[in-house]
Amino acid sequence: MTRLIHETAIIESGAKLGHNVEVGPYAIIHRNVVIEDDCKIGSYCELGIETSLGDGSPLIIAKNSNIRSRSTFYESSSFGENLVTGHSVIVRENTKAGKSLQIGSMSDIQGDCSFGDHTRMQSNVFVGKMSQIGSFVWLFPYVILTNDPTPPSNDLIGVTIEDFAAIAAASVILPGVKVGAHSLVAAHACVTKDVPSGAVVGGTPAKIIAETKDIHLRNDPSQSAYPWTQHFHRGYPDDIVKSWKNQFTK
Amino acid sequence: MTRLIHETAIIESGAKLGHNVEVGPYAIIHRNVVIEDDCKIGSYCELGIETSLGDGSPLIIAKNSNIRSRSTFYESSSFGENLVTGHSVIVRENTKAGKSLQIGSMSDIQGDCSFGDHTRMQSNVFVGKMSQIGSFVWLFPYVILTNDPTPPSNDLIGVTIEDFAAIAAASVILPGVKVGAHSLVAAHACVTKDVPSGAVVGGTPAKIIAETKDIHLRNDPSQSAYPWTQHFHRGYPDDIVKSWKNQFTK
Amino acid sequence: MTRLIHETAIIESGAKLGHNVEVGPYAIIHRNVVIEDDCKIGSYCELGIETSLGDGSPLIIAKNSNIRSRSTFYESSSFGENLVTGHSVIVRENTKAGKSLQIGSMSDIQGDCSFGDHTRMQSNVFVGKMSQIGSFVWLFPYVILTNDPTPPSNDLIGVTIEDFAAIAAASVILPGVKVGAHSLVAAHACVTKDVPSGAVVGGTPAKIIAETKDIHLRNDPSQSAYPWTQHFHRGYPDDIVKSWKNQFTK
Repeated sequence: MTRLIHETAIIESGAKLGHNVEVGPYAIIHRNVVIEDDCKIGSYCELGIETSLGDGSPLIIAKNSNIRSRSTFYESSSFGENLVTGHSVIVRENTKAGKSLQIGSMSDIQGDCSFGDHTRMQSNVFVGKMSQIGSFVWLFPYVILTNDPTPPSNDLIGVTIEDFAAIAAASVILPGVKVGAHSLVAAHACVTKDVPSGAVVGGTPAKIIAETKDIHLRNDPSQSAYPWTQHFHRGYPDDIVKSWKNQFTK
Repeated sequence: MTRLIHETAIIESGAKLGHNVEVGPYAIIHRNVVIEDDCKIGSYCELGIETSLGDGSPLIIAKNSNIRSRSTFYESSSFGENLVTGHSVIVRENTKAGKSLQIGSMSDIQGDCSFGDHTRMQSNVFVGKMSQIGSFVWLFPYVILTNDPTPPSNDLIGVTIEDFAAIAAASVILPGVKVGAHSLVAAHACVTKDVPSGAVVGGTPAKIIAETKDIHLRNDPSQSAYPWTQHFHRGYPDDIVKSWKNQFTK
Repeated sequence: MTRLIHETAIIESGAKLGHNVEVGPYAIIHRNVVIEDDCKIGSYCELGIETSLGDGSPLIIAKNSNIRSRSTFYESSSFGENLVTGHSVIVRENTKAGKSLQIGSMSDIQGDCSFGDHTRMQSNVFVGKMSQIGSFVWLFPYVILTNDPTPPSNDLIGVTIEDFAAIAAASVILPGVKVGAHSLVAAHACVTKDVPSGAVVGGTPAKIIAETKDIHLRNDPSQSAYPWTQHFHRGYPDDIVKSWKNQFTK
């Protein structure tokens, strides 16, 4: 039998680990942590750092999650089942996420954020405090969600990203902005005001440049690229993909 | 009694640790390091990496500092008291900083830089070699300070950021540019020439778009948001905050 | 005799280490790794992570390489001699690189990429899957190479960066774009179409703003700054520098 908890891992008394939880070399699990069944915690991870900014509740990692190496999670956040992270992510306190969240390597979730189900972030995404992010959202590399309209101040207001929105690489969303459902923010945009549902915005400051339905796939120009749910299904559950297909079948 | 130096930490002979210094699991303190009293060094930190680019002086961490986990410091830099870092910061040689410096997670200080007192960086700030940064400066997430006007070259010239300036998220400051005291660089700007004191600049290339005094707080439009010292005091010493208040009282 | 493999390092059975290989504290070398002679692997590195996305071949690190601390490499990539990395780099599977590659701290190489010889990346460069990068290329801090024209999709197309091109800080290259030989992308540009050889482009979207030959060194205005091979030689082999000099001598 393979030993699931590496002999160099440090598991503090009080931490609750379910069945079949694997913990890699040199990982540290602090006392105020609940890890459900069938999770994998990579090497050098540190989970459950204490903070006076939390509500005292434990860090909860629901079943079947995979936290890759060098990741840092504070206490008082909770994640639904099937969480997947890249390497070296940082997640602060008071964040609540639905199931199947993906957090790319070196992403930085600043605390007091919420995520729906099946949202995916790629590498180096910065999620400022108080961001509210829906389900099936995509945040591509180096997307930055801000929260202070007059920095520095105590006048923080998070951004809101609605379901199925996609924000391309290196875009910045300014404080309090709402990015509408099924919209697309082009790469390297600076979004200073709300984005209507289904719109494509780009530039600095970002302006509406198209409707998503007018953008076609490069390798199949007869097919609209949006809603992306019509052609991109990798990793989503079968029942959800089926519902997406039915939605557009007459 | 709690053991302050974790049993897995590696402390090389020659390292000088003051009273009440806490060192976390798997941290490494090399020989050419001075850590003063009441400091906390997080898990997986590595302090005092040798380099031929330094002057041979030790890394000095003054009293009451808190270096969070996974941070990497070279020898031959020095930091005044109350240094606070996020996780995974990287700091190279020949940097001199005043007191109460804050370095956000994953920030990268490239060496040969100087910082005044009470300057604060948020996550993922990049400080190129030879940057000169004053006191009470704010650098927000993903700010980039460059130094090579004709890359690649040996013709480096650092940027200068004067006291109380605030540079918002994802802005780039080009080599040799001086950002004036009490100025504000808007998010996602590319600053190609000097910024006058008290000006607000934005865009690519950045242009003057307002005076800071004309910007008001979102949640209290009767109050100017700048100078920010009039309403934002979190974490600054009482005597300094008092002096800020007196400055604007008739 | 100094022990080259630190006693806390974990070397899995099957890993092949050459002569005079140094492995730092808390490093992990998995089984499917070949490290040639005279390499140095820093503290906390993890090399050879298994992945179903690879072809099963080992991670190969050729002789005289220096991988700095906290770096993460997957199996099924190979690097020529004299690889140098900063701290905390992440390199996925199926990447093939020539000799003397430099990867800056916190850079993220996403897999299925190719690099020629003597290419240098600075900190926090993001290289999307399927990027093809030539020899003597420079990628400065926070450069982002993308690959999905209609995100999210399965319609990926990598960028191509030709020999001697230099991409300045915080620029984004859009999917499928070719950046020509000896060209220069200015800082904070968003490059949406091919860049001709020898051109300087800047802005969002990037436009041609000059020819590289028209840019002069700040500290010696009589000398053109490009081709940079005429004045910048640090770290390149003598025979190559000599060939560069001869190229421009009548």
